[in-house]
Amino acid sequence: MAKVLTSRKENFSQWYNDLVVKADLAENSSVRGCMVIKPYGYAIWEKLQSVLDKMFKDTGHSNAYFPLFIPISYFSKEASHVDGFAKEVAVVTHYRLKNDPDGKGVIVDKDASLEEALIVRPTSETIIWNTYKNWIQSYRDLPILINQWANVVRWEMRTRLFLRTTEFLWQEGHTAHATREEAIEETLKILDVYADFAEKWMGVPVLKGTKSENEKFAGALETYSIEALMQDGKALQSGTSHFLGQNFAKAFDVMFTNKDGKREFVWATSWGVSTRLLGALIMAHSDDYGLVLPPKLAPIQVVIIPIYKNDEEFRLVVEKAILIKQQLGEKGISVKLDDRDTQKPGWKFAEYELKGVPLRIAIGPRDVENNTVEIARRDTLTKQIISSDFVVKTVEELLENIQENIFSKALEFRTKNTHEVNSYEEFKNVIEEKGGFIMAHWDGTKETEDKIKEETKATIRCIPLNVENKEGKCMVTGRKSEKRVVFARAY
Amino acid sequence: MAKVLTSRKENFSQWYNDLVVKADLAENSSVRGCMVIKPYGYAIWEKLQSVLDKMFKDTGHSNAYFPLFIPISYFSKEASHVDGFAKEVAVVTHYRLKNDPDGKGVIVDKDASLEEALIVRPTSETIIWNTYKNWIQSYRDLPILINQWANVVRWEMRTRLFLRTTEFLWQEGHTAHATREEAIEETLKILDVYADFAEKWMGVPVLKGTKSENEKFAGALETYSIEALMQDGKALQSGTSHFLGQNFAKAFDVMFTNKDGKREFVWATSWGVSTRLLGALIMAHSDDYGLVLPPKLAPIQVVIIPIYKNDEEFRLVVEKAILIKQQLGEKGISVKLDDRDTQKPGWKFAEYELKGVPLRIAIGPRDVENNTVEIARRDTLTKQIISSDFVVKTVEELLENIQENIFSKALEFRTKNTHEVNSYEEFKNVIEEKGGFIMAHWDGTKETEDKIKEETKATIRCIPLNVENKEGKCMVTGRKSEKRVVFARAY
Repeated sequence: MAKVLTSRKENFSQWYNDLVVKADLAENSSVRGCMVIKPYGYAIWEKLQSVLDKMFKDTGHSNAYFPLFIPISYFSKEASHVDGFAKEVAVVTHYRLKNDPDGKGVIVDKDASLEEALIVRPTSETIIWNTYKNWIQSYRDLPILINQWANVVRWEMRTRLFLRTTEFLWQEGHTAHATREEAIEETLKILDVYADFAEKWMGVPVLKGTKSENEKFAGALETYSIEALMQDGKALQSGTSHFLGQNFAKAFDVMFTNKDGKREFVWATSWGVSTRLLGALIMAHSDDYGLVLPPKLAPIQVVIIPIYKNDEEFRLVVEKAILIKQQLGEKGISVKLDDRDTQKPGWKFAEYELKGVPLRIAIGPRDVENNTVEIARRDTLTKQIISSDFVVKTVEELLENIQENIFSKALEFRTKNTHEVNSYEEFKNVIEEKGGFIMAHWDGTKETEDKIKEETKATIRCIPLNVENKEGKCMVTGRKSEKRVVFARAY
Repeated sequence: MAKVLTSRKENFSQWYNDLVVKADLAENSSVRGCMVIKPYGYAIWEKLQSVLDKMFKDTGHSNAYFPLFIPISYFSKEASHVDGFAKEVAVVTHYRLKNDPDGKGVIVDKDASLEEALIVRPTSETIIWNTYKNWIQSYRDLPILINQWANVVRWEMRTRLFLRTTEFLWQEGHTAHATREEAIEETLKILDVYADFAEKWMGVPVLKGTKSENEKFAGALETYSIEALMQDGKALQSGTSHFLGQNFAKAFDVMFTNKDGKREFVWATSWGVSTRLLGALIMAHSDDYGLVLPPKLAPIQVVIIPIYKNDEEFRLVVEKAILIKQQLGEKGISVKLDDRDTQKPGWKFAEYELKGVPLRIAIGPRDVENNTVEIARRDTLTKQIISSDFVVKTVEELLENIQENIFSKALEFRTKNTHEVNSYEEFKNVIEEKGGFIMAHWDGTKETEDKIKEETKATIRCIPLNVENKEGKCMVTGRKSEKRVVFARAY
């Protein structure tokens, strides 16, 4: 087949971009930094969305919708939130256009300027807590467990499809609780939902942990994240869950009467994943032939391609193809039969490899004669001839197997690319030569983290949870460290 | 029960607003003209969305996502689109904030102004056709059948929850075709989807028709709409499907090579329904006690309320309630068991009436003894005692019956409130005294329509389809008219 992608080895970043565009997932729009998510890419997002949405509902959350616009003054209310968030944003200043007196088009009507500028939401804590203020009087009104699926805008200077775009799609959960403990429990519950989703659905192993001061969300007391390792050895933060303490309640004066009749500030969490997950999915599994999609999130799980030389053969093989499509469809498997006569089978093979369809079934006249089909898996690029009688069973097994295999492969990759280092020299070598996750001791200070970042471009991805504390000495300063933390260069 | 709503008779508009707020559907936000859709309202929107989404997919459409922002220059490209659309919009002029040197908050950074202002999409024809330009070369690339679920912003001066808000949620379909005929067929196909959805799911009868020049979409050759009649005798346009001809293809230079190798402009349609549908749903069916929801779109179809005096009774009735909930759940019926001890049964009865839950099951100790339950329907406010053995069957039948009944009731209302008039005097009387749909002859001119609107506030809702042409004379000018058209005062 013709090579349509730059290879990963040659230029990972170019490979990624080629793949996103050529597999018809997304493209840059004519609006700076904003992407167009094409139907195939959007279909993956929809799958992902529907699974996550169910997970949120199963854990007691409801969806709602809050305004796109936030008055500029709201951002001044939570001090650290301002610094971290409200700078690179889209600002609405006017509300009307008028005909250009000097031309035939329209221009901004300068007479229609807003008294207070509005920000296109970069995240919705401020507008939501301003709303919760009216919803919460007593402990009986708590908890509030709300999620929102929405678009948000952050005026990014350098953008990359899915990974960092000016506008992106996401969900943002915003919950309100009567106690600190309950809010922390919620934060961790969602972290587990995210990790489960990443591993069991996306097939992407993740580390769970807390963020250092440098990396945490502006306004949070603690930020938890899931961190995944991409094939180029860089980390991708794939979801965050924030324990916000009482910061936003204090900023927006949201108090409740507790069971003892006393007034207290409400405790908060917020959490989100975005279209960035598609970037993680792509960079974790795909190869030089194209996408490799986990069967559970693949819009098309099986493609059937008829092989034929003339009309008679076409009729024969398509008849059989339709039958198999139907059998698989009855099992809830999503199947596409590509019987277009405008493209050759070889072209189709390459096309569905590029698009990461987990299984390909090819049927030729000989297969009809022999009661067989050829079945090829995308993850290993291997194929086999099987009896038609076992198509359904084989497909079901293979889909499950592929789901497991791509997770195992990614896990193995991560294990191979996780390094313990004990000196800063070693650290610098590993980050430069190998990349990956580096487990190293750190003294817990911002100064040391800044120095490491400046000198090596690596940051602390997380302070891992579920890992035994083993004391050691900071690789840079030699000061005491409670446990190793995870460093990496990151997207 | 305490009267929580203004009655419809007293003040329909106030009744509507009370209902939306008190049934927890939505509320005005602190951002002018933007609403907060609360979980219960959003749950109805989600139901509606999932049904429509399936209908679109079943008719061959895929979802995609295009940018929120549109460069101002795009609006100048399609002349009539500019006039009709691009005036009252939110305009983004800056992309950064900075710390206020005179205070502790943030202000717009005047140094960060955009070279070209961006409009927050009021509708996406321009940005989408600018994108389609790169997707379409040959007839093989057609048709393109894409839908987008998105938020849009129109800077409305007078807003009302769901009916007219600055920001609202909608879907917008944008299709591209090789021929005029195919585009018209698509426009009509979607009109049918909308009408089916309104009638079979929402229980709201609608008229299908075309819009007059005055009322059609800016940039369309023909606008088709579905028009529903509300209980106050005003019409609500509930969905539109536009045949755009080659207007946008010409504005954005989108051509394709046809089968004969010739270059032609592409044919277009666009179509949409929005959160306005929730307004239609509310105003078509609800009463002075609250919402009346069609079972097919009700987030909760059945609520079970235990009646008890002490702990022992509570245990008894809840045990039975759980069993019934489970039996109904197995049939795919959405059930809520409200076993809160913080509220009395009477309060709960009123609450779920307010929220329009189609069926209420009450279970008391005597019911446990007698193997019965009391079942009450929301639409007729009638109740009956039935044997517990028939709960599932009865609920299934009643849900179906309620769905049919609220449609029939609305249809009957429309029939009663549709008047044929033959003189302008009669027209004025009917519009003033009775309202409703008025079928009258009109000479087809803008002048006459404008005069009628100015003098009576009534507009032509549509020139009805599927109605036999019966010639007559325009009620205003006496000139020839091909058939009666539908007038009403409208939202």
